[in-house]
Amino acid sequence: MPSEHSSRQYDLDLEEIRSKVLLMGGLVESQFHAALETFRTGDAARADAVIKGDEQVNRLEVSLDDACSHLIVRRQPAANDLRTVMATIKVITDLERIGDESTKIARAARNLQERAVSTINHYETVRTIAENATSLLHDALDAFARLDAAQAASLIAKDELIDYEFRVIMRTLITFMMEDPRTISVALDTLWVAKAVERIGDHAKNIAEYVIYVVEGRDIRHTEYAPKASQQA
Amino acid sequence: MPSEHSSRQYDLDLEEIRSKVLLMGGLVESQFHAALETFRTGDAARADAVIKGDEQVNRLEVSLDDACSHLIVRRQPAANDLRTVMATIKVITDLERIGDESTKIARAARNLQERAVSTINHYETVRTIAENATSLLHDALDAFARLDAAQAASLIAKDELIDYEFRVIMRTLITFMMEDPRTISVALDTLWVAKAVERIGDHAKNIAEYVIYVVEGRDIRHTEYAPKASQQA
Repeated sequence: MPSEHSSRQYDLDLEEIRSKVLLMGGLVESQFHAALETFRTGDAARADAVIKGDEQVNRLEVSLDDACSHLIVRRQPAANDLRTVMATIKVITDLERIGDESTKIARAARNLQERAVSTINHYETVRTIAENATSLLHDALDAFARLDAAQAASLIAKDELIDYEFRVIMRTLITFMMEDPRTISVALDTLWVAKAVERIGDHAKNIAEYVIYVVEGRDIRHTEYAPKASQQA
Repeated sequence: MPSEHSSRQYDLDLEEIRSKVLLMGGLVESQFHAALETFRTGDAARADAVIKGDEQVNRLEVSLDDACSHLIVRRQPAANDLRTVMATIKVITDLERIGDESTKIARAARNLQERAVSTINHYETVRTIAENATSLLHDALDAFARLDAAQAASLIAKDELIDYEFRVIMRTLITFMMEDPRTISVALDTLWVAKAVERIGDHAKNIAEYVIYVVEGRDIRHTEYAPKASQQA
């Protein structure tokens, strides 16, 4: 049984890691935002900056994983405390993948920029799904910051909406392509962007699930989650 | 400093987890194989079985994550030993994602089955990339089983080949679609399958990287990996 002193030190160390994970979350949010902007405006230099900026996200992943390992070795947390570290490690992985998906959006923006002219209104096609995924990611990070399981639980349904929107976009783009094969290249770049946005929604949902796991001590991945009565108020 | 007895118990517990992770790996390999078969044959019942079978993969993820947490709490491993558990947790995540990608292949096979007739030779288009990803996954799991960093290092270049093959497939399918818009639906299903296969290659590469991390104690994610001289023999 750790002494109260080492347990308090554990809490301090953990809070320091958590605040760094939140900084990583903020960086990933701004990468995602910038990537969408390059897709809207066709700004190739900014797209390159997003792709380059992913290196910083990757470095943060490695160093924060390392900090979690050190914390475990030094403080030897009990089961309850360990749960938070485990969830933090998973959140770090999801944030890194959101960074990857953002670079895919920037690459699609660059591809599009190299074509003479866009034959469809590519940004308008993904505007709503992008707004929804942006707000889902923001809210998931907020729930993680405040360890708010009720807020986290409310986000899971939002990811389903995003999945639905993606299927609608796919059907729309297929129609464009069939009606006018000259739109195929642009439509496919738009489809990859929509797919990357949809996956960012999945990662944000994962983060929400880990918040619930930390707070309630239940692993709700792969289940039909029903919040505890106390949290429905 | 743990006693020799508890350290030996740690090794036994860890080996038990590792062998279960390898069983999960075998299950995921067979899900991937079956999914590709449904895409080749159009067997809708088998596609449904793959989709249903993902539940078992998901359950394994949750229970193996849990086993890793218990191991850490009970045995309080030193830094060196903890590295293996951390890598195992990451491998479990990658295996679960490979399961997800396999269900996407099965879903595309089901979609295709519902169309009257395939206008392109959809399976032939992905045959080579599928064979390469299958062998990459198999070899990565083998390297993980034997903790063979040299084998793992040799796999990283194979993932680059798979990424290249994906880009070739995409160009080929765009050409098909432009030449004959009636192929668009089937070409897109084929593109999703190729994308899922490409991502399975990425996850297999991640597993190889974790093997190197365990054996050499270096985190080579996001670096240009050069194997140690001793392993180039």
